[in-house]
Order: sequence, then C-alpha cells, then structure tokens
Amino acid sequence: MTMDDATEDMEATRRLAAQVLKDIRASRPLVLSLTNTVSQSFTANALLAAGASPIMLADEWEAEELLRNGCGGMLVNVGTVSAAQACTMTTAARTAQECNVPWVLDPVAAGLLSFRTTLCRELLKFHPAIIRGNPSEILALAGEPSSSRGTESSVSANVAIDAAMRLARQTQATVLVTGEVDYVTYGADVHALHTGHPLMARVTGTGCALGALCAACLPCSANTLEAALAAACIMGEAGRRAASRATAPGSFAIALLDELAADLR
Amino acid sequence: MTMDDATEDMEATRRLAAQVLKDIRASRPLVLSLTNTVSQSFTANALLAAGASPIMLADEWEAEELLRNGCGGMLVNVGTVSAAQACTMTTAARTAQECNVPWVLDPVAAGLLSFRTTLCRELLKFHPAIIRGNPSEILALAGEPSSSRGTESSVSANVAIDAAMRLARQTQATVLVTGEVDYVTYGADVHALHTGHPLMARVTGTGCALGALCAACLPCSANTLEAALAAACIMGEAGRRAASRATAPGSFAIALLDELAADLR
Amino acid sequence: MTMDDATEDMEATRRLAAQVLKDIRASRPLVLSLTNTVSQSFTANALLAAGASPIMLADEWEAEELLRNGCGGMLVNVGTVSAAQACTMTTAARTAQECNVPWVLDPVAAGLLSFRTTLCRELLKFHPAIIRGNPSEILALAGEPSSSRGTESSVSANVAIDAAMRLARQTQATVLVTGEVDYVTYGADVHALHTGHPLMARVTGTGCALGALCAACLPCSANTLEAALAAACIMGEAGRRAASRATAPGSFAIALLDELAADLR
Repeated sequence: MTMDDATEDMEATRRLAAQVLKDIRASRPLVLSLTNTVSQSFTANALLAAGASPIMLADEWEAEELLRNGCGGMLVNVGTVSAAQACTMTTAARTAQECNVPWVLDPVAAGLLSFRTTLCRELLKFHPAIIRGNPSEILALAGEPSSSRGTESSVSANVAIDAAMRLARQTQATVLVTGEVDYVTYGADVHALHTGHPLMARVTGTGCALGALCAACLPCSANTLEAALAAACIMGEAGRRAASRATAPGSFAIALLDELAADLR
Repeated sequence: MTMDDATEDMEATRRLAAQVLKDIRASRPLVLSLTNTVSQSFTANALLAAGASPIMLADEWEAEELLRNGCGGMLVNVGTVSAAQACTMTTAARTAQECNVPWVLDPVAAGLLSFRTTLCRELLKFHPAIIRGNPSEILALAGEPSSSRGTESSVSANVAIDAAMRLARQTQATVLVTGEVDYVTYGADVHALHTGHPLMARVTGTGCALGALCAACLPCSANTLEAALAAACIMGEAGRRAASRATAPGSFAIALLDELAADLR
Repeated sequence: MTMDDATEDMEATRRLAAQVLKDIRASRPLVLSLTNTVSQSFTANALLAAGASPIMLADEWEAEELLRNGCGGMLVNVGTVSAAQACTMTTAARTAQECNVPWVLDPVAAGLLSFRTTLCRELLKFHPAIIRGNPSEILALAGEPSSSRGTESSVSANVAIDAAMRLARQTQATVLVTGEVDYVTYGADVHALHTGHPLMARVTGTGCALGALCAACLPCSANTLEAALAAACIMGEAGRRAASRATAPGSFAIALLDELAADLR
C-alpha cells in the first residue's frame, strides 16, 4: 500500500464534516479531555469553538464518576503524563469501554519515550475508537522501531501508511496519521486528506486539539471512520482558511480558533 | 425572591468599579491564584491586564509561607483539582483565614463531581469572602440537587437566586452567580448586572479569570459586596466592549484582555 | 561596578543574534523545558516561532531518558514547582551535566519562597550554563537578602549587577538579569541591552519564554555569553517590534509570537 493508492473525495468528506459539525452544535456533546498541561487551554478553546462542551480533570475517581454519569466522548493524550495521571488514564479508558463512551488515544511521543510507549500499548487493551498520531508515533504503536524527534515526526506519512493499516487491523480502531497530508484508515482502504497548512505545525496544540475534535465527532457520526474524517476535515479546512488571513504563528493560532467557530464552506 | 426583585443601578456600579480599578492599578495587590491548569495563563494575563500582581504555585507549604508573608487576596478554584492540590487548597484557606487575607472560592463543577462538592463544603469552613459560581454550582453548595453539565450550567440564573441568598446567609460570604445576567447578593438584597456578552461563554477561563479579579478587588474595596460588584462590572464591561470589535472566539479572547487593560468608560 | 560601566554594542549583538537565529532555524535543536504550568503554552509557542523543537514532560525517568538520547538544550524553571517536580528537575539537571547538555536555570520567586531558594541552590551544583532571573531572584541566589514581590521585582537591575557578577564567578555560569534594561555577565564585563518594551511585563510568560530561548541558543552559539546575549536580543527586538503595532497586552502577546517568527532586522 502506498500513498498513491489512497482514495480522496474531498467534496464528499467536506459534506460529511459539515453535517457532523452541525450535529455537534445541535447536541453539544460533553467531551472529557485527559490531556497534557501544555495544550489544555488551546484544546478547550478549540472544542468550545466547534460547539462541544469541554471538561478536564486530573483525579482518577472523578474521571470514573464523570464517565459513569454520561459523557459523549473522551480524549486520552499522554503528553506530559505523570505516574498519577497514567493511573487516571488507565482507569478512565477501562471505564469508557465499560460504559460505551467512545474514546480517542493520542500517543504523544510514543517511540521516543519508553514509559509512554508502554502506557499506550496498555491503553490499547481498552479499545480506543480512534488513534491519532504522527507517523513516528503510529510506527511505534504498530511495533516498529522509529526515531521520533520531540513531538515532531521525522518519518513521512507515506512510510507510516502500512503501519497505520496494520495498527487499525490489530486494534479495530480507525487510525488517523497527521502530517503534510492526513491519512485515515480502518484497516482496509486509506483515505487521504489534502487540507491544512504548514503553519499548523508552528503552533503548539493543534494536533492535540484535533484529537479532542475526534472525540467530539464520535457521538455525532455513524462510525469511527466518519468521525476521524470529519474531525480531520473540520480542523484542516479551518487551518487552510486561517492561513489565508494570518501568515505568522501567533495570529494564525487565533485565526484558527475563529475559523473553528465558523461553518464549513 | 425572583429576578424581577433584583435591583440594578448600572451607573452607580460602573462608578464604583472605576474607582476600584484605579485603586488596583495604584496599589498593585499581590493575588495568589490556586487554580486549574486549563485557565492559569488566561487568569494571570487577566490579572496583569487589570493591574494586579499575579502569583501561582502548587506546593502546600509555599502557599502557607506566601500568605503569612503578606498577600492582597487569594483565589481557590477547584477545577482539575488533584488529591495533593486539595491539601494545598485546604491549608491555604485555613492560613488565609488566620492571616486575614480575603479569599474567593470558585466551586467549578461542584454538584457534578462529588469530590469537588465535598472539598468545597470543607473549604467553606474557612470563610471565603466571595463565592463565584454558575447556577448549578451555587445550587450544589447550598445543598440542592442539581444537574450540572460539564463546566456549563443548565440552570437559569433566576432559579439560583434563592439558593444564592441562602448560601450567602449560611456562609456570610457575598455570592456572585454568573450567567446571561450576573447576580450578586450578601443575603438580603440581590443586585443584577446586565453586562457581558454571550461570546464570554465560548472562551475557556473567563469565569475563572472573574474569580481571580474578585480576589484582586477585595483589598481595594470597602466590603465584599462592592468587590464582587466591581469585579463583575469590570469583566462584564470589558466583555461588552471586546464583542464590539471581535465576533469570533479566538479574537474575542484577545480583545477581552486588551479591554481589561483599558479604563472603564 | 555600576550600570554606567556596562558596555553596549547593540549593533554587534544584533548581528550575533541574527546568526544564532539562523542556526536555530537550520538545525532545529530539541529543547526540553521543565517549566511552570502557567507559561508552558506560551513557551512552546515562542520556541516554535523561533524555529526550535520544543518538548515538555513531567516524569523524572522520561527526563533522564530524553537527555541520554540526545537533546540540544534544557530549561529548568521552578515556577509552580511541586515536590515531585523538584525531583524531576534535580535528576534532569544531574543528567544534563553528565551528558553535556547545556541547561538554563530560571529561579522564579527564589528569595520570596524558601523552598525554591533551597531547590535552586541545590540545582546550581549541576552547573547551569545560563542563569536568567529578575534582580530579586539573582540577589537571592547570590546569597543576599531581598524582597521579591510575586514574580515581579522591586530591586532595580542596577542594584543587582554586583550580585550577578558575583553569582557568575561563583557558578561559572553566564547570568542574565532582566528588567527595563537587560544585563549579561560571565563575571568580568557586563553587557547592557537597551531593548524590549514595558508591555512585556504585562504578559505572563515572557520571562519564562526568554529562559527557554536561552536554552535554544546554547547549542547554536560559541559560548554561554553569546547564547544569553543572542536570546535577550532576539526576545527584546521582537518585543520592541511587537509594541510598534500592538498597544494592549492581549494583542501584544500575539504580536510578540509573530515577531519571534520573523527575521532579525
């Protein structure tokens, strides 16, 4: 499988994403984000802009209580994870599975830091609906040696497609590999999204916010593939439009939040 | 008591708030914020814009040391609280009471998460000067069943007025209930502030920043009622002005900080 | 030694800083920031804007693993430090010294809070390459009584120059004292940088981001003095340019990130 085999129908994806975004704004799903301290604020603002109801917490039993009381979707992002937060994440993933709350795994720096690689593999047991990562992280979860560099990726998305398909088949999750082009697969076909903008990599938290957006799309989509496609399209199109009016990273981050609050057009 | 009985004299409140803001800028009170990791940056920036000197910390003994050495006011906001931070907050509240440092309680998600409900009720023993919350949170602290939804509120402010008055009488604190209209009460009269803008609910941390602003107003006000009125007016008017020049949430958050640095007019 | 003896050759410093910035963009050094939760997002965005690759983490063994696997520079900033994070910082500083990763100490609120004063003195044993602080913090580390006020400083930079020179000689580090004028010394001469803008003190995290920028400059500079001069010049000039187009703190913070992504001119 190579990137040339990846299918693309951007117009159909945009129509799908527009419908999902409309449903998010109508139903305002409660989205629990267990995420790194660097991008919490940007992630909460991205969710609010898209129309979801964000909630964040640190305590293990609070996570369990919230999930048992009803929650639309959950993000587990292992950036800046501590030992205590690893417990919170594990309990939350187990509870989400029990309570049928669909959840997203964002394996930040898996492959680079061994504690996170191990933690993410444990978390896979609780069946995330979507796994979102850069090529290095996806390679690491699929069991391949990689050379992740910080939170960036030195592996081309192309190289990671085979790993993504294998990971999707192993886990029965939809895998979203982000990079210059985003790839989405549930193990059979691969969908390529040529959207977004290079400035997105110059703002911290855009990838983390995309993971949270996947969690917001899950309760408003027919299946995990559509949720991942919709989230990637909503974020990518917002990034593309933001870059048309902001050319430096500070202004671009603000424009991106503004565009996430707009309709897809 | 209903919202129709609430008094409003916006012009007098604005004059009061302008004087308090002037005093904050002259005396630059040191404000300790023990607050959630999501809104720390926005809260610090809001305090700096208003003219106060923010400080944040995590360690229990550092909180005690700072309060004993002198501090103008303190915010305790229980969002993203961990077991360790609950200890820090309890020690800080006890010390603030001993050292006569006026403090503000922001009971984020009380009623929704039982650990926070219990923690906030414990913290009430140390006599906060002001309690700021949304209707669901105020109902939960006043001992009523509620159905909080994430960090948002599904109870109209109107419904919460009776609970706010009862809570104010129980605790001898001024209670500030925020929503489309803000209500302030010390147990007898209720003051309504028709200010602010719906975009404020689309930016994470505006409520948290208002709690911190209450803490900055306390050392610069004649009493707790005036401090809560001034803070709600400063924040609400800044929000109203910001919405006149920014219509999407990313830009609006930046405009709100800009306006908090301006004079009340 | 007084500020009148401080040398200044802004044009030479700007040429140096332009070269260092170019090298950062070419080599994209991985910079580990162990820093306070308030300014993590702003710090990561400042590093990305300047062209470096930021990474943040909380766990002690992850810090050690990352440093052993190769890292361009590290920042240790003790704001909002907890007991667990103090362990992470100590292990990280020891490992950085062992692995020859140059690192920066930012002693936030040393002198004001005794735990931090003690921790920073312990950390000095592992030989930071650069120490960046305000006058109060530098006085505290050099063993002088001070009266720090929150995260701001009530001591003029002038008063702190002697302490900075003594601290530089004691620790063999370059010391960068920031204030209205920035002073840089490695123990003999003192370099003064008349750049920056008062609005920088109205935005939380600008000082913390400068510390991180020092860490990014270290692997791209001939020595620690040049790295500190380059970082202070890059940040100060970006601040000066940002203030020419933004006059209120919210907009200024965004303009500052935009200008950090521009070339020095």
